[in-house]
Amino acid sequence: MTQQGTLGIAVIGTGKMGADHVRRINDVISGARVAAVVDIDEARAKAVADLSEGCQAFTDPAAAMAAPGVDAVLIASPGPAHEAALLSAFEHDLPVLCEKPLTPDSESALRVLEAEQRLGHRRIQVGFMRRYDTEFMKLKALLASGELGRPLLMHCRHRNASVHSYFTTEMLINDSVVHEMDQSRWLLEQEIANVTVLKPTSSSNAPEGLADPQLVIFETTGGAIVNVEIFATCGFGYQVQAEAVCERGTARVGDAHGMLVNRPGTWGGEIAPDFVARFEEAYDREVQAWVNATKRGEVEGPSAWDGYAAAAVCEAGVRAQVTGERTPVDMIVRPAFYA
Amino acid sequence: MTQQGTLGIAVIGTGKMGADHVRRINDVISGARVAAVVDIDEARAKAVADLSEGCQAFTDPAAAMAAPGVDAVLIASPGPAHEAALLSAFEHDLPVLCEKPLTPDSESALRVLEAEQRLGHRRIQVGFMRRYDTEFMKLKALLASGELGRPLLMHCRHRNASVHSYFTTEMLINDSVVHEMDQSRWLLEQEIANVTVLKPTSSSNAPEGLADPQLVIFETTGGAIVNVEIFATCGFGYQVQAEAVCERGTARVGDAHGMLVNRPGTWGGEIAPDFVARFEEAYDREVQAWVNATKRGEVEGPSAWDGYAAAAVCEAGVRAQVTGERTPVDMIVRPAFYA
Amino acid sequence: MTQQGTLGIAVIGTGKMGADHVRRINDVISGARVAAVVDIDEARAKAVADLSEGCQAFTDPAAAMAAPGVDAVLIASPGPAHEAALLSAFEHDLPVLCEKPLTPDSESALRVLEAEQRLGHRRIQVGFMRRYDTEFMKLKALLASGELGRPLLMHCRHRNASVHSYFTTEMLINDSVVHEMDQSRWLLEQEIANVTVLKPTSSSNAPEGLADPQLVIFETTGGAIVNVEIFATCGFGYQVQAEAVCERGTARVGDAHGMLVNRPGTWGGEIAPDFVARFEEAYDREVQAWVNATKRGEVEGPSAWDGYAAAAVCEAGVRAQVTGERTPVDMIVRPAFYA
Amino acid sequence: MTQQGTLGIAVIGTGKMGADHVRRINDVISGARVAAVVDIDEARAKAVADLSEGCQAFTDPAAAMAAPGVDAVLIASPGPAHEAALLSAFEHDLPVLCEKPLTPDSESALRVLEAEQRLGHRRIQVGFMRRYDTEFMKLKALLASGELGRPLLMHCRHRNASVHSYFTTEMLINDSVVHEMDQSRWLLEQEIANVTVLKPTSSSNAPEGLADPQLVIFETTGGAIVNVEIFATCGFGYQVQAEAVCERGTARVGDAHGMLVNRPGTWGGEIAPDFVARFEEAYDREVQAWVNATKRGEVEGPSAWDGYAAAAVCEAGVRAQVTGERTPVDMIVRPAFYA
Repeated sequence: MTQQGTLGIAVIGTGKMGADHVRRINDVISGARVAAVVDIDEARAKAVADLSEGCQAFTDPAAAMAAPGVDAVLIASPGPAHEAALLSAFEHDLPVLCEKPLTPDSESALRVLEAEQRLGHRRIQVGFMRRYDTEFMKLKALLASGELGRPLLMHCRHRNASVHSYFTTEMLINDSVVHEMDQSRWLLEQEIANVTVLKPTSSSNAPEGLADPQLVIFETTGGAIVNVEIFATCGFGYQVQAEAVCERGTARVGDAHGMLVNRPGTWGGEIAPDFVARFEEAYDREVQAWVNATKRGEVEGPSAWDGYAAAAVCEAGVRAQVTGERTPVDMIVRPAFYA
Repeated sequence: MTQQGTLGIAVIGTGKMGADHVRRINDVISGARVAAVVDIDEARAKAVADLSEGCQAFTDPAAAMAAPGVDAVLIASPGPAHEAALLSAFEHDLPVLCEKPLTPDSESALRVLEAEQRLGHRRIQVGFMRRYDTEFMKLKALLASGELGRPLLMHCRHRNASVHSYFTTEMLINDSVVHEMDQSRWLLEQEIANVTVLKPTSSSNAPEGLADPQLVIFETTGGAIVNVEIFATCGFGYQVQAEAVCERGTARVGDAHGMLVNRPGTWGGEIAPDFVARFEEAYDREVQAWVNATKRGEVEGPSAWDGYAAAAVCEAGVRAQVTGERTPVDMIVRPAFYA
Repeated sequence: MTQQGTLGIAVIGTGKMGADHVRRINDVISGARVAAVVDIDEARAKAVADLSEGCQAFTDPAAAMAAPGVDAVLIASPGPAHEAALLSAFEHDLPVLCEKPLTPDSESALRVLEAEQRLGHRRIQVGFMRRYDTEFMKLKALLASGELGRPLLMHCRHRNASVHSYFTTEMLINDSVVHEMDQSRWLLEQEIANVTVLKPTSSSNAPEGLADPQLVIFETTGGAIVNVEIFATCGFGYQVQAEAVCERGTARVGDAHGMLVNRPGTWGGEIAPDFVARFEEAYDREVQAWVNATKRGEVEGPSAWDGYAAAAVCEAGVRAQVTGERTPVDMIVRPAFYA
Repeated sequence: MTQQGTLGIAVIGTGKMGADHVRRINDVISGARVAAVVDIDEARAKAVADLSEGCQAFTDPAAAMAAPGVDAVLIASPGPAHEAALLSAFEHDLPVLCEKPLTPDSESALRVLEAEQRLGHRRIQVGFMRRYDTEFMKLKALLASGELGRPLLMHCRHRNASVHSYFTTEMLINDSVVHEMDQSRWLLEQEIANVTVLKPTSSSNAPEGLADPQLVIFETTGGAIVNVEIFATCGFGYQVQAEAVCERGTARVGDAHGMLVNRPGTWGGEIAPDFVARFEEAYDREVQAWVNATKRGEVEGPSAWDGYAAAAVCEAGVRAQVTGERTPVDMIVRPAFYA
């Protein structure tokens, strides 16, 4: 792959999400590189830029977008900085992956919409990553197939072990339930028409001033009803579940079971059709681990010794098939070299 | 990332596995490129080489390994060709990822072992990809932690929907159970001392001449006993399961439930600690999808309209939190631009 | 057990529920007999009375309650007939198991309450049978233990495959959700203060005029919020699920998994402590089946042949333990007598 | 129910199992009574006899069987006493439920078989109670239906938390695996032809001298192979699992999931068809609890207050269906009488 085939990305913002995206582009993503890093803190920008080869540091998003080698923009700065960065990207006609929120309120979001329409073609992808989760993708595909009929109700759970002391009741909506808002619109292909929030007695584990949990109800333009349990201080872990109740069955994701479907007379999940479906990600992980170790000058994973041992055991196995007897494995002593 | 930071890989063999590895390196793997492709069929080698930028085609593995830009070798040719390719790689001192089997028998495998020892450092990783499967990695970590005590028994299931007509009884061992052989050695950290094969009455769905299913039993040097159901024509799908029975509990993977553990009084699985653990792969998939679409000149995924809609619904949600009332969402009509 | 030790029950009403209770008392319940049967249809009353030894038929509940041998009353007549029957039972000071509803409305129910208080001691048990379901009993015990802290939210699902054409929207509440009403009051030990009903777009499988499904929300006097999906025409079967969301974990029943509990870091269920807990109901079923067959003059279940075969196999097993060898079982040919 | 309709049972043996059967007949089983109790310890026999009305105590089984009112025999004495008791029962031509083992060895079992054949009709049911377990009954029905084709393999697990110090290696077979022996014969409808026992390294939790766990393998006359993990000191609880591997699918019971079936493309369990199937046992438990409490002169369970409260909440619910509004429940204050 030549330099021109590699997408040069300017990462705007180097907080937790931005720094993680830099790591991801460097170590996980194929065909892309971090070409520029932007942070208002110049030292921080430089420190993060140093993690990627040939990467420049900037304090101004617009300057980064004008730099050579920048083909696309990933915005991970705080929400209030998004509008200016998005408008800069439009000026340079650069594709953007913008972490949610698009902007902090609908008025500014509308200005962005209008600017993109003036530009004349879509440039923005918003970072609602649940649309890329394997289980949610399966749920989307099942609903889209029409097998279960129209969705009528959706039950959602969004549970988080604990929150920082500065977490507010509004953040339950803006940071947490915003995912169910997008997820509902995407899965149901309907807009949300009304929202109701019910507050039970709060957990004694919720920080002072935070009403937690809450039950949020959406009514959609197509007449579906969605209820969302948001529980930011549930204590036991992070859990995101959704069940679509349709005319002819229900489907649920997020129970650590893959997708479970209720169909007439049975509940259950799917069995992989073949080893590719079952182990595709293991192959990806294997080759990536090998590439990464090799570039570090190291050798990891199953060794030639393991290959030899497998051959020796297979030979015993094939003999055992023929004789039906317990068959000793004939192997050399493991060399210290492979200890 | 500069050219010099990218690992140039020679892929030997362009059958099903080799071609899939080329696709994987091109589209999924970070920091690597296909520098050379080798196949005894020259036209096929060229056709596959054309899928990767700057990639050369060869019919001779040794020639490919000598080519400029080749930093490492991935062997996916038929087993009988592995020994020669591995020895060539040693001559060029190149790191190798070698698909299983290392070689077709233990005698040739031993020659490879001896050659690698003469080379003086490890160069070979064998492609036992289950070691990179998320569930098996969790099982390995749990066993290694010692929480459940020593493993005493292991129950394995290896089920495949159907096989080609040329599939033989020996291939049940050499192509299928070989995975359980490596998996057992890896999980138990013991060698296999004896193998027994029991053959029940065969399924009427097994092709003529194939004794299927079989129950294969390993006894290990540490006294553990492993039984493996191999059922290559089970009809219902592909399923790989393993349960380790230890002194203080059991742990099972492969039931489409993540890992299930029996501990005193309870059975169950783990809950993700946070959204990173739960959605890390969704983030990876999201950014990779964005990079791939951008390089094709396309925009996919959640749009600015979705970002705007989320902002509008959040505003209604926050108002609903305050009033406790059903709160209409205030949104513009969706522009045709975002239809 | 002598006659005086057996509870003589008058069953009022011989519709579906009443007839089933007669069968239950005759075939399943220990220590009771049907002493009288009441139906306004005299022929029907006689036909059902003939199913039980020494049972009399009546058309008037009060007459049945005055009959000799009647120690208790089971009311399974239509709801509008309950008040009069309950007041008769109070006159005879008889204990009553009254199928739900107690009476058709709260005004008449209040009259019954007042009458029972005038009587001076409790005589009525109402037939909310979920309180006797194994899973719900476990959920109740877990909540009562306080391990998970206070319950804050409850998510309920109540799904039914299909309904008769005469099923009305009101019956969704009075016949179906009434169970969740009692269940919530029982599990939470709080009264219900407010009810809200949300109606999504109806399923096209719901009969004309029936708004189905619905989402019913209870707010309790202790500040908990309960939501109930009632879906009477879901098509796929009958399913009752409930999840209590508490301060320190959640617990769910009705997923065909026994009770699943989310606790810090893990989800899962309980393992039976011993064979009594696991197989107690099998023992009950075994002995009941033997008694019933014996009374019919029949012999069923595992035979002496099965006992002999087990002995022969055990002998081979114990030898196999000693020798470690495959050990043939030494058995006679199965006599035709045991074919 | 008249006296003559009640089966009078002589219970032979008043150890743990015998005493539990006395409790079961008294409190759970319909249509039977304990007419006689036998124990070589006269005081113990009398103490247990006193638990049942009109029950006589004996030290000699034969005397008990001759006593008036004895219609059937339940043998729960130690195995070595079974043969004599069974032969006595034949003399009186009484039906017998005999706890396993039929007798302690196959030679004596054969004598019993021959005696029963001389008697000319079957009188013995042996106490293999797994045949009455709901999950095993479902597995049996599925196998018998032929839907999955012939069974080829069976994987069994039999786990017990811990054992008494006197538990021996032989008892693993005679007391524990004997259940899998009968279960395999019953499910497969084949005899067991060979037995092999494999012993892995023992758990350090097994008492001195007990080789635990073990892997026991049966080969049946029809060519099926069964493997049984017996682990008497697993520590975490009691767990009995079985998976039948058939030509066209597998079915598994004992995982706390009901029965799970692998069919083409899906795994899963069944959904109850209606509320009778789902709650039948709750109804049984409800009525039995009411009968038992009534006979003790007590009133338990949902009260008239609960019936009133349900009526009041239903009225609010029906109003809420009409108005779509949050509707307060109108209830009186709970009278102290119902506190």
